Amino acid sequence: MAERIIMGIDPGTQVTGYGLIACQGKQMRLLACGSIHLGKQEVSHPQKLKKIFQRISSLVEAYSPTEMALEAPFYGKNAQSMLKLGRAQGVAMAAGMEQGMAIFEYAPRKIKSAITGNGSASKEQVARVLKTMLKFEEDPKYLDATDGLAVAVCHFFQNNPKAPGKKHKDWASFISQNPNRVKGDK
Amino acid sequence: MAERIIMGIDPGTQVTGYGLIACQGKQMRLLACGSIHLGKQEVSHPQKLKKIFQRISSLVEAYSPTEMALEAPFYGKNAQSMLKLGRAQGVAMAAGMEQGMAIFEYAPRKIKSAITGNGSASKEQVARVLKTMLKFEEDPKYLDATDGLAVAVCHFFQNNPKAPGKKHKDWASFISQNPNRVKGDK
Repeated sequence: MAERIIMGIDPGTQVTGYGLIACQGKQMRLLACGSIHLGKQEVSHPQKLKKIFQRISSLVEAYSPTEMALEAPFYGKNAQSMLKLGRAQGVAMAAGMEQGMAIFEYAPRKIKSAITGNGSASKEQVARVLKTMLKFEEDPKYLDATDGLAVAVCHFFQNNPKAPGKKHKDWASFISQNPNRVKGDK
Repeated sequence: MAERIIMGIDPGTQVTGYGLIACQGKQMRLLACGSIHLGKQEVSHPQKLKKIFQRISSLVEAYSPTEMALEAPFYGKNAQSMLKLGRAQGVAMAAGMEQGMAIFEYAPRKIKSAITGNGSASKEQVARVLKTMLKFEEDPKYLDATDGLAVAVCHFFQNNPKAPGKKHKDWASFISQNPNRVKGDK
């Protein structure tokens, strides 16, 4: 079975988190994760966007991901910040489109729910579950990176319903897929 | 003097207008203008963004513009539509960033004012002035294209204060720059 490489991105105008995983069948392994911090040296908004675009483009070049998944909040109160967020999402997507990658979007609640089973989980809870799944050392300063990684893992689960960690819809489907784990009546 | 090629873009998720002008000194000439219509065949929002990105990338490749100017409304009431607009702006910008182009932004009022002298001018008024400046046939169906062209011309004026059509700040500056046009007292 061909290896899929998924790039997850959580775009933002202050910090953009990213994570890359390699998937084969039900298995996934961590390739890279990190964050792009947009500090004072990027004075203007276009400069920030340029940094996001260039960094993501170079990651795409380095790891040749086959799919891109984005964390995409669809609603927000402040129109001004939604415009800026949209631009960050746009340049991130374009870095993937350039290479002909398929692009997928997931709402924040959907991602948290896919990883932890709880759509209201904290960043720390998400990071802890990812740490166990992908066997890496948790570090609080990498929480932005794990946000990016979480999108990649969520996308992997989405297209691979039997992947480890995937919650079963109900007991009936769990039982049908795991007959050996059902105890007989005593 | 080296020729500058300015690409103007008015990004939108329904229609994206563009215009390209070649400028040398105070002279400018029309290279191309048109619009990218995002119809029913682009079912999803990412597909629309992909079409914008691909079309702008191919125009960049065809005309090798040196600067990109965008019409960028900064305020809007609806956060959801501002997010979508931001994405369209983001992919358009990325198509320019890919080639290392400098990117500039102008508010809609600023553009209208630069072309017609009136920040509240209608699309038709802007098109009419552009038609005279750049000597092309006005066609109502090209109003989206002229919106893109207007941004390019606005950017040209911005960086070339003595360009034809540029309004003088006040009578004193007009007189100092045009002494032969001042009638003596009789």
